[in-house]
Amino acid sequence: MSILEGKALIAQGGGPTAVINQSLVGVVLESRKFPQVSRVYGAIHGLRGIIEEDFIDLTQETTHNLEQIALTPSSALLSTRDKPDEEYCKEIFRVLKVHDIRYFFYIGGNDSSDTVRIVNEQAKKANYEFRAIHIPKTIDNDLVLNDHTPGFGSAARYVAQAFTGVNLDNRSIPGVYIGVVMGRHAGFLTAASCFAKKYPDDGPHLIYLPERAFNEENFIKDVKGIYEKFGRCIIAVSEGISDEKHVPIITKLQEEIEKDAHGNIQLSGTGALGDLLADLIRNKLKIKRVRADTFGYLQRSFIGCVSDIDQQEAREVGERAAQFAVWYDKDGSVAIKRPSDEGYSVDYELIPIEDVAGKTKTMPNHFINKDGNNITNAFRTYARPLLGSGFPIAHRLRAPKVKKLLTK
Amino acid sequence: MSILEGKALIAQGGGPTAVINQSLVGVVLESRKFPQVSRVYGAIHGLRGIIEEDFIDLTQETTHNLEQIALTPSSALLSTRDKPDEEYCKEIFRVLKVHDIRYFFYIGGNDSSDTVRIVNEQAKKANYEFRAIHIPKTIDNDLVLNDHTPGFGSAARYVAQAFTGVNLDNRSIPGVYIGVVMGRHAGFLTAASCFAKKYPDDGPHLIYLPERAFNEENFIKDVKGIYEKFGRCIIAVSEGISDEKHVPIITKLQEEIEKDAHGNIQLSGTGALGDLLADLIRNKLKIKRVRADTFGYLQRSFIGCVSDIDQQEAREVGERAAQFAVWYDKDGSVAIKRPSDEGYSVDYELIPIEDVAGKTKTMPNHFINKDGNNITNAFRTYARPLLGSGFPIAHRLRAPKVKKLLTK
Repeated sequence: MSILEGKALIAQGGGPTAVINQSLVGVVLESRKFPQVSRVYGAIHGLRGIIEEDFIDLTQETTHNLEQIALTPSSALLSTRDKPDEEYCKEIFRVLKVHDIRYFFYIGGNDSSDTVRIVNEQAKKANYEFRAIHIPKTIDNDLVLNDHTPGFGSAARYVAQAFTGVNLDNRSIPGVYIGVVMGRHAGFLTAASCFAKKYPDDGPHLIYLPERAFNEENFIKDVKGIYEKFGRCIIAVSEGISDEKHVPIITKLQEEIEKDAHGNIQLSGTGALGDLLADLIRNKLKIKRVRADTFGYLQRSFIGCVSDIDQQEAREVGERAAQFAVWYDKDGSVAIKRPSDEGYSVDYELIPIEDVAGKTKTMPNHFINKDGNNITNAFRTYARPLLGSGFPIAHRLRAPKVKKLLTK
Repeated sequence: MSILEGKALIAQGGGPTAVINQSLVGVVLESRKFPQVSRVYGAIHGLRGIIEEDFIDLTQETTHNLEQIALTPSSALLSTRDKPDEEYCKEIFRVLKVHDIRYFFYIGGNDSSDTVRIVNEQAKKANYEFRAIHIPKTIDNDLVLNDHTPGFGSAARYVAQAFTGVNLDNRSIPGVYIGVVMGRHAGFLTAASCFAKKYPDDGPHLIYLPERAFNEENFIKDVKGIYEKFGRCIIAVSEGISDEKHVPIITKLQEEIEKDAHGNIQLSGTGALGDLLADLIRNKLKIKRVRADTFGYLQRSFIGCVSDIDQQEAREVGERAAQFAVWYDKDGSVAIKRPSDEGYSVDYELIPIEDVAGKTKTMPNHFINKDGNNITNAFRTYARPLLGSGFPIAHRLRAPKVKKLLTK
């Protein structure tokens, strides 16, 4: 048990998810139970809020409203993409000290876990005693040492429901359809499109992931094959697909590429990649009806399409973070483990932050088929529980054909 | 009561909706009750299925499966965009006669109602006795003489839920966001984005509809004003926005424009319009974070995001169609009326098909604000019941600010 008395501070970083506030509420409600924790502050707009002393006092938030917030997508404390350097961190400590903040919880993905690592290093250097815990979240599902990450299940459910609808739509008026899904280096979210498939001819028929080099010739050959077989073709593509030299396909289009503070190229919020691929199919295969949609920002904060499993786990990683800090007096990153691959259950562990920070997990080889244009049943088995219960199912008419009376 | 004995035939035309199968199932179950109706056939791929005698016998479909089909988005009988000419219609009658089809139900929008009109004219010319009923559906909500159309409520709900998420996302990481929504001539669906707004600074802040000429200069001025006020800006745009000469903005981009059999320009399935508007804002206002998503095919067949009101009404227009044909022995188009604007309830009437066919309803003036960049509360009052019950609500933290301890 930690005897460290002082305030707790919570912040949310990086891109939002549909369940990131479950983790926030988990930390807040659990922290408020400990007498050592005198106040629970929330930083507005992540690290930037710390530097600017922009705090709200969550000790004075109603439990009822917190429960409503938990059901609301996207970071209720607002977010930032700032990446702290040495100077930035010194400034953070000045604020932490002045406010007597002794417990720091940062909910975020790759970049955010790296931030927690840097902040913690600075704290040690400054001999400032405090506990820093990273709480995982990312729709990309790309944190190492985690079976999966909160936020992924709900985004995966959105993508699967979207492709279920798109498949029904495209079956009704056939053509080629391309859906561009978020995922810079990891294809998990794009792979989740597979759950749209129920009947043998259902799409998505082809799934392209950043884990495999994208080759235009093979792509065209794949589409041609499916189109000749079914008279239509549904394709799921990760926004981050790259060629054999690891050059993102989207950079082949744009001369001036926008980058964020972490040096990441902007992939979402433009229909360019989908339109490029659609044009390619139109030109090479002379297929007239080719459509491309880029799911963009619809997939990560959509309200009303959430996985209950994802909600519960997001809540628990927040609760466990508070418990690890106060009961166990430890720093680290909360990780989700799946103890058995024969049934679905999870455990939460605290792992060293430097083991997670700045590293990216991608799809393992056995989740991707040999041709690199689809996923395997091993992925289905892995990912299905994460989408939660009550996934809507499409049905088809099975009435018998009527005999033709006119000779054709 | 009609004493006309023979078969009934049902087909679905045009773009699918999330509830079009409710209407199908309504017709089938109701028709099967009448002894005059010997069989209930379904045409596969709309009118094309008639010409090709591609029928299934829905008299032999289980009621249980029909109820599952009713909950499945997109035309279960599959659709077509074929527009029949004189020759095409002659061919239709040859098939109708041979199969002794005496009741014809066609579920569709503008173009489909026109088709029912043509088919009925041909029937009269050929002295072939039968009843032809048009059953309304369109996410565009653009059928005249209807208060609203089945399919709109569910698509509107999707658009409203999408913008609710997008607004939360954009509040968390501010910037300019453009969401391009379906709607060629009528802005109803784009206008439904307004239901994302709960707090005074929520988006969408600007809504551009095809009913008002789109002017680039005014657009940039509008965005600048909102961005300066809120530090962010969310914009809903109809894909069909046009300039003062009625030239669609999207045609300014593409040299070769794809058209369908009805002469309509292809607007959906490309991110071009969103990307054009985003570039315009980047260049003119020097705002860095500008994102555009085109909702495309996600919005009309998404599974698991349906209005219960829309489901019920779609079911009833199908049931009423069968009743109008058999009990009343009449031809026409089933229309939804709202008898009072003080509470929400509907009546169904049969109106002459030539009064609906080929005509387009657009947003009335009192639904659009003076500046032509937003909607009015009159629209909110009109459209809110159509989205159905249980619409998810976003919440915000209300905890008090903490006093700053460092002088800034």
